[in-house]
Amino acid sequence: MWVYLNSRFVQKKHARVSVFDHGFLYGDGVYETVRVYQGRILLWERHLARLRQSCELIGLDLYIQDDEWMPILGELLVRNRLQDAGLRVTISRGEGEMGIDPRLCARPTVVVMAKPVVMYSDHQREQGIVLHVSSVRRNSQLAQSPQIKSISFLNNILAKQEAVGVGADDALMLNVDGQLAECTTSNIFFVKNQQLHTPAVECGILKGITRDVVMELAEEQGVSVEEGRYTMEQLFQADECFITNTGVEIMPISRIGNCQIGQGKRGPVTSVLLKVFNMNVDRYLGPCLPASNS
Amino acid sequence: MWVYLNSRFVQKKHARVSVFDHGFLYGDGVYETVRVYQGRILLWERHLARLRQSCELIGLDLYIQDDEWMPILGELLVRNRLQDAGLRVTISRGEGEMGIDPRLCARPTVVVMAKPVVMYSDHQREQGIVLHVSSVRRNSQLAQSPQIKSISFLNNILAKQEAVGVGADDALMLNVDGQLAECTTSNIFFVKNQQLHTPAVECGILKGITRDVVMELAEEQGVSVEEGRYTMEQLFQADECFITNTGVEIMPISRIGNCQIGQGKRGPVTSVLLKVFNMNVDRYLGPCLPASNS
Repeated sequence: MWVYLNSRFVQKKHARVSVFDHGFLYGDGVYETVRVYQGRILLWERHLARLRQSCELIGLDLYIQDDEWMPILGELLVRNRLQDAGLRVTISRGEGEMGIDPRLCARPTVVVMAKPVVMYSDHQREQGIVLHVSSVRRNSQLAQSPQIKSISFLNNILAKQEAVGVGADDALMLNVDGQLAECTTSNIFFVKNQQLHTPAVECGILKGITRDVVMELAEEQGVSVEEGRYTMEQLFQADECFITNTGVEIMPISRIGNCQIGQGKRGPVTSVLLKVFNMNVDRYLGPCLPASNS
Repeated sequence: MWVYLNSRFVQKKHARVSVFDHGFLYGDGVYETVRVYQGRILLWERHLARLRQSCELIGLDLYIQDDEWMPILGELLVRNRLQDAGLRVTISRGEGEMGIDPRLCARPTVVVMAKPVVMYSDHQREQGIVLHVSSVRRNSQLAQSPQIKSISFLNNILAKQEAVGVGADDALMLNVDGQLAECTTSNIFFVKNQQLHTPAVECGILKGITRDVVMELAEEQGVSVEEGRYTMEQLFQADECFITNTGVEIMPISRIGNCQIGQGKRGPVTSVLLKVFNMNVDRYLGPCLPASNS
């Protein structure tokens, strides 16, 4: 398995960073995850824009130019013999002396990793997964903007760990005001009376790219979408619920804590959105990566 | 320069971890910093207890036994030819596949680094430093316990960066409720009418070890200490202000934002505490490290 690390492609076992890298010492860095379909990246422009935004929000110089990315990602796919893949781009502050001041680091560390796509069976996509309502609240946006897709991820890890401990698949996190926020690595939607609802960005959530796409596709299908501030009670009374992210795309939720959602499996609106998403993937895909078809 | 890394001593340039280490990917880990005086560690028992607590709070197995630490720390000092030093122990979740579930990692990564002590001149200790009141609020304790001394440190980095940007030495952070919390890597105290005040742990701060010592010493000197919930206004009207941590020990604050504190230099109560701290260091020191006197 090959990894891109600071201008070079190295094998996984050689893909190492200094223990003085501020990514390791202080979680000082950002990342982005993208999905590749047959050598074509889904919504790369949006992911790159968000990566730039994350870097800007933490004052990190993303020295790789826009047009330099495609050859890197393409070669990484070829070296790993992957056509369908998940890619993770990580930019950390880089190596520096101990101390939290970013000026101690001369140059960011850039890492790109590829992994095969996790495939979900039709059965899983139909039955959905189970969420646990976490006692861990989502980081306050007063403390750290959720628009920074940061590698300081302990908040979400604690929630995930708690969920796994009670046998759930993932954790649903509320914000510090007790409103619905998001899951540990995904956004949440629910359906009530044919209308789609999702927590507003102002609730302190990451503005997910799959979230945006689902909202666009829903509107096209005549399903109205409301972004708002919601309580757990409203969610428990929903007809359907699903989560979205780059990896799972759209995944139904069957149960939250002890509460079955709707019929306890994928509902009709979720089914339509899943179908429409799959039908429309093509329009969101970029060109075939330079090296991946060679 | 030598670094301890997973049971081995390696030179700095070889002290590298996998880019798949969850410390690097997700800031999933904890750390502790200690101060060594002439080969003797200050308050090691308390630091070790806190390290154990941090590990426990994130469900990380600290597999190194209590009596294994001293030989490690001692040898590290000898190899680095240091008698007075700052040591940082970092325990990350270890290497694992991508994904935030800690069960993906088989074994934690253990790193210990040493660095020479930053010495402050009498002038600096007299004139004090300047704080900026950060717009970045301290992480809510509902989201992440401040008692986890975690490497997911972006919240504090953002505050530090802002402070440095306006020419201040460090940032003073309020909690999400607008009460005084702490600085990016230190606790804060202020003096008003001969009484010492410091934010209560319930304000969402790390229970600093130097903070505890200063409170103990103050009480011994007949200076009463109140832990409470304070506003910026109360701080601005203080007679004296100082910060505490393992590295700076006790450092006076001359100015916060545009507001001079007291006489704008070290005040009498701070002077007494600094003197008493220095006089009493010896009683807080452990035995000479096994290898450091060889």
